[in-house]
Amino acid sequence: MLATKTGTAEKPASSTPTNRGLDFTEMLSEITRSRKSNPMKAFLEHINKPGLISLGGVIKPGTRAHDEEKLNEYTEISVKKSVEDGSKVESLNSLLQYGPSTGVKSLSHYFSHHMRRYHTPQYSNMESIMSVGSTDALNKVAALFLTRGDPVVVCQWTYPAVIETFAGAGYKMVSVGMDNEGMNPEALDRVCTEWTGPQKLKVVYLIPTGQNPTGATMSVQRRKDIYSVCQKHNLMIIEDDPYYFIQFGGLPVVHHEEQSESYFSKLPGVENLLPSLLSLDVDGRVVRMDTFSKLITPNTRIGWITGQDYFIDAILKSTESTVQQASGFSQGLISKLLNDEWKDAGFEEHIRFLQVDYISKRNCMLNAMEKYLGNKAVSVVVPDSGMFIWMEINLPEPHKSTPGIADIIFNKLIENNILLVSGWQCHTSQDTEPVKNYPYFRLAYSFATIEQIDSGIQRVANTLKEFGCDL
Amino acid sequence: MLATKTGTAEKPASSTPTNRGLDFTEMLSEITRSRKSNPMKAFLEHINKPGLISLGGVIKPGTRAHDEEKLNEYTEISVKKSVEDGSKVESLNSLLQYGPSTGVKSLSHYFSHHMRRYHTPQYSNMESIMSVGSTDALNKVAALFLTRGDPVVVCQWTYPAVIETFAGAGYKMVSVGMDNEGMNPEALDRVCTEWTGPQKLKVVYLIPTGQNPTGATMSVQRRKDIYSVCQKHNLMIIEDDPYYFIQFGGLPVVHHEEQSESYFSKLPGVENLLPSLLSLDVDGRVVRMDTFSKLITPNTRIGWITGQDYFIDAILKSTESTVQQASGFSQGLISKLLNDEWKDAGFEEHIRFLQVDYISKRNCMLNAMEKYLGNKAVSVVVPDSGMFIWMEINLPEPHKSTPGIADIIFNKLIENNILLVSGWQCHTSQDTEPVKNYPYFRLAYSFATIEQIDSGIQRVANTLKEFGCDL
Repeated sequence: MLATKTGTAEKPASSTPTNRGLDFTEMLSEITRSRKSNPMKAFLEHINKPGLISLGGVIKPGTRAHDEEKLNEYTEISVKKSVEDGSKVESLNSLLQYGPSTGVKSLSHYFSHHMRRYHTPQYSNMESIMSVGSTDALNKVAALFLTRGDPVVVCQWTYPAVIETFAGAGYKMVSVGMDNEGMNPEALDRVCTEWTGPQKLKVVYLIPTGQNPTGATMSVQRRKDIYSVCQKHNLMIIEDDPYYFIQFGGLPVVHHEEQSESYFSKLPGVENLLPSLLSLDVDGRVVRMDTFSKLITPNTRIGWITGQDYFIDAILKSTESTVQQASGFSQGLISKLLNDEWKDAGFEEHIRFLQVDYISKRNCMLNAMEKYLGNKAVSVVVPDSGMFIWMEINLPEPHKSTPGIADIIFNKLIENNILLVSGWQCHTSQDTEPVKNYPYFRLAYSFATIEQIDSGIQRVANTLKEFGCDL
Repeated sequence: MLATKTGTAEKPASSTPTNRGLDFTEMLSEITRSRKSNPMKAFLEHINKPGLISLGGVIKPGTRAHDEEKLNEYTEISVKKSVEDGSKVESLNSLLQYGPSTGVKSLSHYFSHHMRRYHTPQYSNMESIMSVGSTDALNKVAALFLTRGDPVVVCQWTYPAVIETFAGAGYKMVSVGMDNEGMNPEALDRVCTEWTGPQKLKVVYLIPTGQNPTGATMSVQRRKDIYSVCQKHNLMIIEDDPYYFIQFGGLPVVHHEEQSESYFSKLPGVENLLPSLLSLDVDGRVVRMDTFSKLITPNTRIGWITGQDYFIDAILKSTESTVQQASGFSQGLISKLLNDEWKDAGFEEHIRFLQVDYISKRNCMLNAMEKYLGNKAVSVVVPDSGMFIWMEINLPEPHKSTPGIADIIFNKLIENNILLVSGWQCHTSQDTEPVKNYPYFRLAYSFATIEQIDSGIQRVANTLKEFGCDL
């Protein structure tokens, strides 16, 4: 036996070339050509503007979702060494945030335990599977049911990355009207009844708790009503619920000094949470997505998907031929945190911490809005969960009738060093140009400090003054 | 301002349900229905058979790709705490292996540095982007150019997960014949010239070094010839090159005692590697995929993709709306290893370690094959890189003409406690049933110990005796 000769190495000369490669753009597939950048990523161009305050929900490097003490808990069990002096590696704080784009058994046991502890399975064959975060999960869950060209029912306003994911996959979004509790069941029923498209309606996508961007939370009755309409029209439900544990139980907005122990004690904790759609799902038509992104930190790239066993099995197959699984490091650390360090008691203490933290910031932002914006310049829906406030600006003429006024205001806000998310980026219509005539904005109270929230809202007020708003 | 009332929690009764959910299989999309399990995963049913030796390349829990000392290097800088006694969490060793399915700046700098150090860019606009491993990368790179229904040119034999990925995405595989150096350029030219399909041929998929499953390595001349044919027919090239650094430089097979320092000193290291297709790519038609899976450990879920900037930009967009990025933990640890601990010198020492390790095991397996199987019972191609030996069994009649003989032999091998990968699982024809008439098998020398390799080959010999082979 002799080794086959494959020739010796003979590398071409290695001077740095100055010529570009040929233009092969005509080789790109239709799906590649049609895909747009995630519009939220475009915010990164503004985010490093000196002096800017972001209430846009884009995470600014160096800011934190949780306080120092909580973050230290993760550091203790994780990559402490990487923050040593002289390292080229980003700090843990930076590693764990969204950055540039580019299950093990103990954890899968945890998912199963978690679903049974905090939700109420209505059928016997419920299973969960790990995802590498909810964006990946959404792609996989949608593809379970949908083929390019199929319609998917969505709220009139929804999360920009979802719009991009559905558009990128070639699904046609069918928009349904909303009220203060999210998708309106009568509107959904009407859309389904009147539907005449070539492909039948099969799937509705919902964020039932602290909806992104409107902050709307579906009441128990609303959840039941929506579920009934889905039964009537045989729609599968994608329940995307990253803010599920960040509920405020209907607590009123109070001033800082009124936020007593007794006030916080009325928060729902884990005992009095609204039931998920999955908990009401007697048919098995809900596929639910959970994630650690809003509970622990965004860049674990670990979430999980729950539904009937044969749906989960199909997702398993799709996962095997795509991302395979989440990083072993990440799985190990998250599993360690949940199974060894926190256990149920620690997780639930953490949930209470999050609820206190978020309602305090919600109150802070709404108080600042009352103080600087009054009651006439803007209309808002007070969120009872999550991290978003949805704001409509009540403009006087001629601004009210100025085409594209939303972008004009956005640019003025940036000029005044305050970043919000434009409503039109969250609109599910095919053509968002007309939406720019309506000045809706999403504010997030998740990442800014109390001081930044106060100054930020003051800057919003100063900007609206320039448009003649009644402050 | 008053909080909106969303109702208080009212969970349904929580007794464990016994009824299954409704049958919604008719709601599944065509792509979901058509997707099969990754056939390699089916091996897991055999892998825990007591006494089994796997030369199949499936990683058996508890075995290791590298020696203890090397693994300790990673442990030092990683999740050491998770192996404490009493932990529910899997050990590091287990976390870092393939398990159940379910860039930060410093790293992206590393990719760029790596490509310039070990490859030779032929055009100015070359860029790299992180992937969450090569399976994810392959999906994204293929979708750059291909739409469901499009043809993709592949080797007659290729990696089973690739077959599943292409089949799952609805690409039609166009099979091209191979010889000892991989894809045959005349065969490729003929297939392209005679192509009459409705969609034009746009993409060829290649594993140029240590091809999976045949172990074939393309010589410099072969690389140039294949590239010329791709230029002639304007084909884009997907270069999947996980075994690139595991090259043996044409070193002959020697016995254990002949493996001297002087023998190993002739290994290519990083200085005398064959040039990648990317290094020959004057047009910019190659999109190359690298991964740490075969260099460090499989479950980092980090790899990278390199090509012209506008290809990389399109992959960035696709990544933003799917997996977003690799886990921050994982990125941090890998970056730490490459940038702080190893640096170039450490990486290159590691490469030399891998080459010594793999050629020793290659020699061991080929020596065992000579010892137990002789020269007549089987035909093999001696691999000059990677981890695979491709074996054709020379059967006497009546076995030679027995339909499905490959499966009959596979089952007998399992009975004799030895696991190989069946050739038909690596065949790219639409119908693999006829392929089962030809007894091809893939052997891997990557994970078994020297002792297991020797016993394993002995078991193969004992099995072939039962089929009357000339040993």
